[in-house]
Amino acid sequence: MGDRQVPDIVVGRLPIYLRALTFLKADNREITSSQELGDRLGISSAQIRKDLSHFGEFGKQGTGYEIRYLEDNLREILHVDRMWDVVLVGAGDLGNALASYKGFADRGFRVAAVFDAAPEKVGQKLPGGLVIEDVNTLETRVREAGWKIGIIAVPADAAQKVASTLIGAGVVALLNYAPISLIAPSTVRVEQIDPTVHLQHLTYYLG
Amino acid sequence: MGDRQVPDIVVGRLPIYLRALTFLKADNREITSSQELGDRLGISSAQIRKDLSHFGEFGKQGTGYEIRYLEDNLREILHVDRMWDVVLVGAGDLGNALASYKGFADRGFRVAAVFDAAPEKVGQKLPGGLVIEDVNTLETRVREAGWKIGIIAVPADAAQKVASTLIGAGVVALLNYAPISLIAPSTVRVEQIDPTVHLQHLTYYLG
Repeated sequence: MGDRQVPDIVVGRLPIYLRALTFLKADNREITSSQELGDRLGISSAQIRKDLSHFGEFGKQGTGYEIRYLEDNLREILHVDRMWDVVLVGAGDLGNALASYKGFADRGFRVAAVFDAAPEKVGQKLPGGLVIEDVNTLETRVREAGWKIGIIAVPADAAQKVASTLIGAGVVALLNYAPISLIAPSTVRVEQIDPTVHLQHLTYYLG
Repeated sequence: MGDRQVPDIVVGRLPIYLRALTFLKADNREITSSQELGDRLGISSAQIRKDLSHFGEFGKQGTGYEIRYLEDNLREILHVDRMWDVVLVGAGDLGNALASYKGFADRGFRVAAVFDAAPEKVGQKLPGGLVIEDVNTLETRVREAGWKIGIIAVPADAAQKVASTLIGAGVVALLNYAPISLIAPSTVRVEQIDPTVHLQHLTYYLG
C-alpha cells in the first residue's frame, strides 16, 4: 500500500479526506460519495476519485464509499494506524497550546516531550503533565528516544538552529510554525503552518 | 485582475508563491524561475507556470520572473496590497500567540481586537497592547467596526457558536483553529488550520 510515485500534492489531500470521513462518522453516517466529500471540501468529485484511485478501488459504482472502510485504508496509507511520538520545541504560548491540543491523540500523534531555552521555564509542569526540558539536552534526548517527528514552535531567529539540531539527532519530519523557510536536506520533509497564507487565500475572495 | 473562475486550489497556492518570493527578496535576489520556485516548494515548474498564467504574463521566456514585479502582482491579486483588520476570538494560549504573531503585519493583516468568554481575562492587556474584550459584545463590536475576517481560536465546543455570531455580524471569511468542521453559508469562506493534517502528510513518507 502506498505507491511512492503519488504526487505530493495528492498525498497532502488525503489527511483532509480522512478528517472529513471522521466528521461524517461522528454524525453516524456509514456511506458517502465523492460528490458529498467534494461539496464539503470545495474539491471536485472527479479530483477526489482520481486522488483515491492512486491507492486502490475504494468505492462501488452507484453506492459510493463505505466510510469506515475508506477511513481505515487512509489511516493505513498515511501510517496513522499506529501512534507517533512527536517532540515539541518551544514552550511559549503556541507551544503550550500544542502541548495540550486535543486533536492529536485519536489521529495518530502524541507529544512525547517539550523543550525550551528559557531557564525559568525548564522544569515547569504543563497542564497535560509534561515537564518542560532544557533545549540543551534536545539532541541527546531525541537520539536516545529515536523520535522521528519534530514540531518547531520557537521564534523565527531560533528556528533554523532548532531544526538543524533535530535533524542532526535523527528527526526526518518537521512541522514548522516559525515564519521562516527552513533549510533542510532533501531526506527531511518539512511542512509549514502559516496563518497568513490562509488569510491571504481568504482575501482573494474579498474585494 | 483576478479571474473569478480560477480553481480555488490554484488560489490557495498563490500565497505560498508570494511567501517564497518574499524569502528570495530577503536574500537580495532580483530574478527567479518557475524551476527554482518549484524546487523550493516541491511543486512542478509546469504547475507554477500554469497557475500564474491564470492571472497574466509575468515571466519572460529565458529570463524568468522579476521577483519584485511578480510579488507586487500577487499582492494585488490576493488583495493584500492593503491592510485588513482581523477579529480574533479566544485568548487562550493559541489566541495569545496569534495576538502577538509577527508574521501578519507586513503581509496585509492586523489583529484589531481580541475577545474571550472568561470574566477573569476580560479587561486584561496583552503584550501587544490589545485589551481582551467580552465575547458578549462581539456581535455589536464586529457590526460597528465592519470587520470582515475572523480568527476562531476557542475550544471545539464553543467554535460553532462563535462562528455563527461572527457571520451574523457580517464576517465573511473565517480562519478556524478549532478541530471541528464549521457550518457556514456558502457566502462565507472558511479556512481551517489543523496541525494533525500536516503531521499525517509527513507520516505518509515514514514507514
